[in-house]
Amino acid sequence: MRALIFDVFGTCMDWRTSIIRAAARHGLPPELADAWRAQYQPELETVRSGGRPWVNLDTLHRIGLDRVLGEMNLQLPDRERAALVRAWHELDPWPDVVEGLTRLKAEHIVAPCSNAHIALSVNLAKYAKLPWDAILGAELARAYKPQPEVYLRSVEALGLRPHEVCMVAAHNGDLRAAGALGLRTAFVLRPTEHGPGQTSDLAPEGDYDAVASGFGELAELL
Amino acid sequence: MRALIFDVFGTCMDWRTSIIRAAARHGLPPELADAWRAQYQPELETVRSGGRPWVNLDTLHRIGLDRVLGEMNLQLPDRERAALVRAWHELDPWPDVVEGLTRLKAEHIVAPCSNAHIALSVNLAKYAKLPWDAILGAELARAYKPQPEVYLRSVEALGLRPHEVCMVAAHNGDLRAAGALGLRTAFVLRPTEHGPGQTSDLAPEGDYDAVASGFGELAELL
Repeated sequence: MRALIFDVFGTCMDWRTSIIRAAARHGLPPELADAWRAQYQPELETVRSGGRPWVNLDTLHRIGLDRVLGEMNLQLPDRERAALVRAWHELDPWPDVVEGLTRLKAEHIVAPCSNAHIALSVNLAKYAKLPWDAILGAELARAYKPQPEVYLRSVEALGLRPHEVCMVAAHNGDLRAAGALGLRTAFVLRPTEHGPGQTSDLAPEGDYDAVASGFGELAELL
Repeated sequence: MRALIFDVFGTCMDWRTSIIRAAARHGLPPELADAWRAQYQPELETVRSGGRPWVNLDTLHRIGLDRVLGEMNLQLPDRERAALVRAWHELDPWPDVVEGLTRLKAEHIVAPCSNAHIALSVNLAKYAKLPWDAILGAELARAYKPQPEVYLRSVEALGLRPHEVCMVAAHNGDLRAAGALGLRTAFVLRPTEHGPGQTSDLAPEGDYDAVASGFGELAELL
């Protein structure tokens, strides 16, 4: 195994806590975070289905935000909406991420394979001090996970074959898609990604190469 | 200025010393390095001109190596030719590069904007411990510098505008192309890139934003 590629939202970053905090700065209720994130997969699907040409997550986040604010009957000036979209560029990592990645980086190539575009991944890394070796993912393929080309283009960009690369994610669907393409898979438990009442992805649902409670344990296992 | 993007061969890496050393490991004379590198621009030109579809530098290095070995009447088994092509993935940096980049990275996004493909840039960075924030350059645009799309696609991938990005290179031609597109420019002197008898790029030939003798001085200036 030569490289580890990572899901970012939820696996590396605690997006929910950060977005709740950002919403509060604009006088918006904490419920906004979950409602906004609930727009995420449907918006990605408009691209995956071919209904919309590939646009980046800033664009899709803005569309989702506008819809949710409308549904919740909340007013917000355009400038503040732009600032909230930008809040996705400054998310806190889970506490084990920076140290774990630094350990994993000593022996492997580490890179995000996220639906974030390159600028978003770079800005998150600068903010959170994530020591990536490269930025891979959706923008290289102009597609969105779990579309196969996102994983395959990332593997190809490293000059590697799928079995030389391990996909790391807190989401069974992500690992199912990567595993079906021949990548190795590592499940990292993030049982509070969606808050204290989380019901999904609480346990591995596949025969993964590794299962870990955090990036520190992942570094031990590999 | 938010980001610095860097030429790699010659500006960051002392390719000539490393390739002479690699050639010696295969019993080949030091002259091979300069003769091989002399194939570089003509091979890039076959792609830039549209005569050949975009292929990566491993492919172009192999074509150039085969031609040079033939011209020099040197025998080398296929496996050793492949190892020599791979030697371009393990080049020593100039002594000021790692420390200078580390300082520049504290305040700016730093990324290669090289004709190297992503895998080559990543492998060079792993070997030489270059602390890039992202890997940009030729492969994103499927073009080769000084074609404008290489610079513009790199700037766009960072979500920035040209005047927010500075191209750093030891080559006047590279900076001329970047500057014409509105990027800022920094010339770094590498007067022995081509050995003790170097005749090109010994001085800045444009009105650049910065001129420095190395990455340490560049960090002072910015």
